Amino acid sequence: MAEEIKLAHGGGGTLMADLIRREIMPALGSKGPLDFSDSARLDIEGVSLAFTTDSFVVQPLFFPGGDIGRLAVCGTVNDLATRGARPLALSLGFILEEGLPIETLRRVLQSISRAACEAGVEVVTGDTKVVERGSASGMFINTSGIGLLRRDLDYSPARIAPGDRLIVSGPIGDHGIAVVSVREGLSFVSGVESDVAPLGEMVRQAVEAVGPQIKCMKDPTRGGVAATVNEMAQNAGFVLDEKSIPVRPAVRGACEMLGFDPLTVANEGKMLFVVAAQAAERTLEVLRANPLGVQAAIIGKADSRKGLVRLKTSIGGERILETPYGEELPRIC
Amino acid sequence: MAEEIKLAHGGGGTLMADLIRREIMPALGSKGPLDFSDSARLDIEGVSLAFTTDSFVVQPLFFPGGDIGRLAVCGTVNDLATRGARPLALSLGFILEEGLPIETLRRVLQSISRAACEAGVEVVTGDTKVVERGSASGMFINTSGIGLLRRDLDYSPARIAPGDRLIVSGPIGDHGIAVVSVREGLSFVSGVESDVAPLGEMVRQAVEAVGPQIKCMKDPTRGGVAATVNEMAQNAGFVLDEKSIPVRPAVRGACEMLGFDPLTVANEGKMLFVVAAQAAERTLEVLRANPLGVQAAIIGKADSRKGLVRLKTSIGGERILETPYGEELPRIC
Repeated sequence: MAEEIKLAHGGGGTLMADLIRREIMPALGSKGPLDFSDSARLDIEGVSLAFTTDSFVVQPLFFPGGDIGRLAVCGTVNDLATRGARPLALSLGFILEEGLPIETLRRVLQSISRAACEAGVEVVTGDTKVVERGSASGMFINTSGIGLLRRDLDYSPARIAPGDRLIVSGPIGDHGIAVVSVREGLSFVSGVESDVAPLGEMVRQAVEAVGPQIKCMKDPTRGGVAATVNEMAQNAGFVLDEKSIPVRPAVRGACEMLGFDPLTVANEGKMLFVVAAQAAERTLEVLRANPLGVQAAIIGKADSRKGLVRLKTSIGGERILETPYGEELPRIC
Repeated sequence: MAEEIKLAHGGGGTLMADLIRREIMPALGSKGPLDFSDSARLDIEGVSLAFTTDSFVVQPLFFPGGDIGRLAVCGTVNDLATRGARPLALSLGFILEEGLPIETLRRVLQSISRAACEAGVEVVTGDTKVVERGSASGMFINTSGIGLLRRDLDYSPARIAPGDRLIVSGPIGDHGIAVVSVREGLSFVSGVESDVAPLGEMVRQAVEAVGPQIKCMKDPTRGGVAATVNEMAQNAGFVLDEKSIPVRPAVRGACEMLGFDPLTVANEGKMLFVVAAQAAERTLEVLRANPLGVQAAIIGKADSRKGLVRLKTSIGGERILETPYGEELPRIC
């Protein structure tokens, strides 16, 4: 463990996982649930809730396809969606930098409002802090969310069994490449927009169609598909088929030029589903009927090699797909 | 409205209230509850919850009597306590600055853990982001909290009636003076420690003793007693008696030298209660039996002059006690 915080500690990879597992969890001496990846489950007087929090530090505040406000709403409602929870309420905490134009705040607020409306959730409580010039890159946002869980459904990596199919709801890498291209002024990357979108409705449709045959859902944000599939590989392993993984040509081209693997690049409007084999085609059908899932694809399956994620490469080889270390793309969300 | 964000927008005074009322609330087009001061009430399948969020940007991270971690836990559980809610769960969002010593993070985590234990609440979900050196003053923390409301009790300024008594649970101004003295290196301020403490247990004892005779509770944080009593002066006015307001001599002395009014200085371990006149003595008795309320005092009463807060000064005069503008003490929580 490094003796000081590095940017990679926030990258969604192994260094962040180590920080949480070695420092945060033991210090908090968690007796009950403590979930730093998606959301925690709370059972309160017969009602089951999901509770989640995320801070957003993306740079720049506005990027092709979205902005920090839309990201803050979608990031949190998508964490609720991974549990099949219906979002009930959001909180909104602003840390604003002295000198921020009020007009910028207005644009972000409008974007929050539109995204909340799309997601069918309301902001019910909030907080505003201000820090001196140079201390917050314009603004940081925290959103926490409460969702209502269906008690009859439980989605978790523990339910994954060999033979289950892995589905992604659309092409990967759009968000990370869109943000990095505008931040770094990469003129050769054109036409790539962030996929940031609320996924609750699409997830609800899938849950309605195949219910408990969905074993687990996770949104591949920081650390990308590589980190997320590794998180799911607890009770089973996975074999992914690179050829079947949808990646837009512009994203693939940018990744090649920048030396990124699209599998490690963040998404903000995609969901990974692990479903029983017999429900895979029906799930695909339902996802593809939703505008956010038109390019959904089966990209791999679970096997019995617990904890191991393998990738059959396009050129016919095989490699182990590891959780990235975390330093590839800082400040991506 | 200024066209850019000023430090005073975060000061808990009129400028912050304007920002929330003129920009944030209309943009979010709130149909339901939208509470930027304490907490929102949610009714979910027969269960009533309070939901609140706060970000913490205090500088320095460690100060006499506390640190950002203790503050983050207490600030949020005290917001729940103002509704008489029992805290059920906290979320914890870190924004860490690159280069922060891990040892500093450890100390803050231990403090969070201790404060959560004191407050009888658990951290159940969290998030970690990292920003570049120079972007976050070491760390910022967001905590959001969920509490269980008693459906038979409702505390709000709307219930305040002329004749009700205003009680403060102890001496005011400790937190703000403790933070500013160490931040500014004021060697003439000695022995002042922050009052930061979780107030849930003390509030529970008062609620148990006098129940609905408590009309309203609020914790006088940013903007101090002045801002908070003005917030409560919706259905009634207030007359405060300066002589009866407890202020430690060291805090009074520091305020005089620095040109602050103790009534506008932040507290993090005090509660203001408005109670029916006949319940005032019993409330005092219960508060004083708790170590956090030993110096509780009746400091004023409600009258019929809606929206107006007057102060009978120690020297026999009277002045209007206004909500401060907000620029007195930045980065105090």
